[in-house]
Amino acid sequence: MTQNGTWNVYLAGEIHSDWRERIAAGVAEAGLPVALLAPVTDHSASDDVGVDIMGGEGEKFWHDHKGAGVNAIRTQTLIRKADVVVVRFGEQYKQWNAAFDAGYAAALGKPLISLHPEEHDHALKELDRAAMATAREPEQVVEILRYAIAKE
Amino acid sequence: MTQNGTWNVYLAGEIHSDWRERIAAGVAEAGLPVALLAPVTDHSASDDVGVDIMGGEGEKFWHDHKGAGVNAIRTQTLIRKADVVVVRFGEQYKQWNAAFDAGYAAALGKPLISLHPEEHDHALKELDRAAMATAREPEQVVEILRYAIAKE
Amino acid sequence: MTQNGTWNVYLAGEIHSDWRERIAAGVAEAGLPVALLAPVTDHSASDDVGVDIMGGEGEKFWHDHKGAGVNAIRTQTLIRKADVVVVRFGEQYKQWNAAFDAGYAAALGKPLISLHPEEHDHALKELDRAAMATAREPEQVVEILRYAIAKE
Amino acid sequence: MTQNGTWNVYLAGEIHSDWRERIAAGVAEAGLPVALLAPVTDHSASDDVGVDIMGGEGEKFWHDHKGAGVNAIRTQTLIRKADVVVVRFGEQYKQWNAAFDAGYAAALGKPLISLHPEEHDHALKELDRAAMATAREPEQVVEILRYAIAKE
Amino acid sequence: MTQNGTWNVYLAGEIHSDWRERIAAGVAEAGLPVALLAPVTDHSASDDVGVDIMGGEGEKFWHDHKGAGVNAIRTQTLIRKADVVVVRFGEQYKQWNAAFDAGYAAALGKPLISLHPEEHDHALKELDRAAMATAREPEQVVEILRYAIAKE
Amino acid sequence: MTQNGTWNVYLAGEIHSDWRERIAAGVAEAGLPVALLAPVTDHSASDDVGVDIMGGEGEKFWHDHKGAGVNAIRTQTLIRKADVVVVRFGEQYKQWNAAFDAGYAAALGKPLISLHPEEHDHALKELDRAAMATAREPEQVVEILRYAIAKE
Amino acid sequence: MTQNGTWNVYLAGEIHSDWRERIAAGVAEAGLPVALLAPVTDHSASDDVGVDIMGGEGEKFWHDHKGAGVNAIRTQTLIRKADVVVVRFGEQYKQWNAAFDAGYAAALGKPLISLHPEEHDHALKELDRAAMATAREPEQVVEILRYAIAKE
Amino acid sequence: MTQNGTWNVYLAGEIHSDWRERIAAGVAEAGLPVALLAPVTDHSASDDVGVDIMGGEGEKFWHDHKGAGVNAIRTQTLIRKADVVVVRFGEQYKQWNAAFDAGYAAALGKPLISLHPEEHDHALKELDRAAMATAREPEQVVEILRYAIAKE
Repeated sequence: MTQNGTWNVYLAGEIHSDWRERIAAGVAEAGLPVALLAPVTDHSASDDVGVDIMGGEGEKFWHDHKGAGVNAIRTQTLIRKADVVVVRFGEQYKQWNAAFDAGYAAALGKPLISLHPEEHDHALKELDRAAMATAREPEQVVEILRYAIAKE
Repeated sequence: MTQNGTWNVYLAGEIHSDWRERIAAGVAEAGLPVALLAPVTDHSASDDVGVDIMGGEGEKFWHDHKGAGVNAIRTQTLIRKADVVVVRFGEQYKQWNAAFDAGYAAALGKPLISLHPEEHDHALKELDRAAMATAREPEQVVEILRYAIAKE
Repeated sequence: MTQNGTWNVYLAGEIHSDWRERIAAGVAEAGLPVALLAPVTDHSASDDVGVDIMGGEGEKFWHDHKGAGVNAIRTQTLIRKADVVVVRFGEQYKQWNAAFDAGYAAALGKPLISLHPEEHDHALKELDRAAMATAREPEQVVEILRYAIAKE
Repeated sequence: MTQNGTWNVYLAGEIHSDWRERIAAGVAEAGLPVALLAPVTDHSASDDVGVDIMGGEGEKFWHDHKGAGVNAIRTQTLIRKADVVVVRFGEQYKQWNAAFDAGYAAALGKPLISLHPEEHDHALKELDRAAMATAREPEQVVEILRYAIAKE
Repeated sequence: MTQNGTWNVYLAGEIHSDWRERIAAGVAEAGLPVALLAPVTDHSASDDVGVDIMGGEGEKFWHDHKGAGVNAIRTQTLIRKADVVVVRFGEQYKQWNAAFDAGYAAALGKPLISLHPEEHDHALKELDRAAMATAREPEQVVEILRYAIAKE
Repeated sequence: MTQNGTWNVYLAGEIHSDWRERIAAGVAEAGLPVALLAPVTDHSASDDVGVDIMGGEGEKFWHDHKGAGVNAIRTQTLIRKADVVVVRFGEQYKQWNAAFDAGYAAALGKPLISLHPEEHDHALKELDRAAMATAREPEQVVEILRYAIAKE
Repeated sequence: MTQNGTWNVYLAGEIHSDWRERIAAGVAEAGLPVALLAPVTDHSASDDVGVDIMGGEGEKFWHDHKGAGVNAIRTQTLIRKADVVVVRFGEQYKQWNAAFDAGYAAALGKPLISLHPEEHDHALKELDRAAMATAREPEQVVEILRYAIAKE
Repeated sequence: MTQNGTWNVYLAGEIHSDWRERIAAGVAEAGLPVALLAPVTDHSASDDVGVDIMGGEGEKFWHDHKGAGVNAIRTQTLIRKADVVVVRFGEQYKQWNAAFDAGYAAALGKPLISLHPEEHDHALKELDRAAMATAREPEQVVEILRYAIAKE
């Protein structure tokens, strides 16, 4: 009976594996009315976007700062538009930006799904506590979305 | 003269009778521009969704906890999307979840319609006070929606 | 260059003259992308809607109370959906409901246009202060909407 | 067991009878931890405050407008500070400002108590529906406050 | 090093056992800077407060309705003032009001502690999911408060 | 993979150069799903709209006041609808309205892009600090939007 | 009868004349319960605070940026704490920061009082429209505060 | 002239060095009206608080989950009470909780000060962009607070 309209699902975090593609494939296969939103996942484009558009900086700190501003226009807007936020932690790097996005989403009252291997459980315990579900594989996220959005 | 667009109406509460179907039939017959939103009403699917997707739990408390998280992704999102929330109390079970949803909706400023038999009047007096209307039959809810949405 | 999408304009207040029709005619003639929203303007239907749907009351106070609840589902939802609220005061009746709606809209940060004859200026000075414009004729409201929505 | 701190109670509406004094007397006698907030009740001071401070106006509309602005600094600030808003309608005058304040308070989620004679019941039915209680006498308002704030 | 000021803790739910007194005793013994807030726990005073103050009603529904309004002035104000909300479910009665208060608090972003025997675990799973902690005994609530407020 | 829907971009500030047209051209060429929103840029129409519609004023202050009210209906509504706000400062005039709009947008949490020549850097340092990016040319704004909205 | 507690009044804008001192003197003389809040008015301390604390910058833009960040911690916090915001425009400089603060305050729903000479009326018409009062002299601001806060 | 009242400053992040003590010493020496708020910094007490109070868990995930809930009561409440949030990243550990808290604070509109060594600059660029200032040493944070709170 339910008609839910389109859900916006923001996929935050790791940009070095194919987890977004696996979720996209699963969502498409399930025919879910979902718009998948994401940060720019081209690492060097993301790092350099500020100076690429607005001119170079001598200091690395300001080089990063300009890029981070442009990325924030995208990410904060998309998190605000999102109905659900998925945050993925991979096995490498600091990934503080992923945790920042999760905190940002949580304070806005967005339902959060965390996605990470067991080895991160202790370090992510506060974030997992703020999440509605903790998944290990992208396909589990697809199942959660299928249930939340389309289960009769 | 009025064009109101589509209204989202969330149907919270009892999952053991056909009240949602009766509202859906009435809304369809009246041709109202309404999207009816609902929790998952398949009782065992709802209870087990957490462990079905993310793996079993030894403790019943955590079994329930995982399922409740997945259900909350759906119900909190739909309540936030709703223009009006209807909450139904049947004759059996504790139905604390229905009352929780009603409180959640009330604090978000959603207009609330309660639907229950007279025998629950005293126990539901605070909830009914927070509601804009208390109906006894699903068809009365349809009439209220017809008036609110489509009455010239 | 501007594309504004559709604006929702709620027309609160007096139900005993043709001011809504005059605004509707002007908006249609100007081809504005406006959805006009309104309370139920059939006086007796509005007064009796509570008891008509949910059963009669011995006390007039509760008769009114039940009707007011059903009307509030409509009016509060539409004010929340509105981009602009117009509030009209005619020459008769207390019209406290119109002033209540105006205060409600003002606290939600909705731009307010008041519409009333000069004779009410002193009594409506606080409300006019909260409004962005005070018009005397419905056609002036149309001109304001035309400027706000469609002026290049 | 309960320690509630001080409650701010804003007394909106009629300025031509002694209802505020009666509430103040009752609150004092009951020893309630209440700060009573109110608009300026000196009618001519209130009407003229804008021009008295910032200079005269040739047009009555702007004379009123300037005064209404200064009064709004007071009333909107106090309504925002209030925990509870009481709104009184007397037997004379339009009193649209009282209804505006009530709508403003309601949209901010402030619990509302209306206070008026029975003869206004029909005209105030929407406002009374938005209120948590409708009293006839100031002493009843004191009793409600006593219960809400100090009843063990 | 930390100075947290006073915390407001609202104790919602069951009024037929001494759990509030046990929390009060524990808080006092621990010397916590806590103001404990509560609904009126005198059952008949709570049921009848509306008609006691504002006059009797022929219909039980409106008798309850008037009382529920006065109680809501208290409970909604205190929940809004609260930093933490504890909700207790006992072994008897419907206790829908407790669940409504919990939903209301959750939607306002208040940290929630649930307190109930294991037998209610399944029926309260959604509410427990929304809570930050589920305790079995009032003394555990005191320990949680001690940690949250005063642990160095 | 991303589908972002349409973004509303409000273009605040200077009305004496072709910067809006240059952004519109760039956005069109890039095929971005952007609705460009703007104030009325016809200077005299904007100045006189209040008296043109609602009648002349003897005092210039009130002439301006009436016009500013009508313009505010447009600008505040569009800023509220905006996903991103661009604010342009040209080389002439006080342009306090542009700075006011920027502060308004910032407090609503809208991502801000400032656009101005270097000569204004010191005077605009607080505003630039609140912005996510400071551009010198309209084409840079287009590049920022392209990245934020459409970069894979 | 009224006890309003202390009001926080933020004094934004011009730092090159003695208007804040004149308001402080007037408020003290009137014995008003007002806490006057202000930005740092030592011009060079304000400009250089970022580099003074966190180290120098080669680029003037980032020198300013660092300082603006530290000032924003102060000004945004104080505007949020304020009950009323006064914004003063003097005869010199761009003063875009003052207009930005006014827009920021307006969007937060703070009552605004503007203070400036007549020569700025046209350039400040939108800001004056958003204000509750426009004063010419600091002493008029004191009178407005006296009325709003302490008039019986 | 300014009286700002007490500021609440929440100190998030690293618990393995003496940075909080250094800020506390500096604040005390400067005589600032600051209440310093902090999470529990006793690592094992923090890890085990859930099971210590509410009973042991067989699964480490739920052991952590229970503890994280109790800690969240404290941290989310204190972040909501805070006027300013300082977030510190040390040289060890994942510290995702610190980044989560920073995102949470940012979305609530709290001014953020980040504190970390240069080696983290690139990994923290998004978080630093959301901050009003990035400091290297606790004493710089004290200077920023001194300026923001007490500079005449």
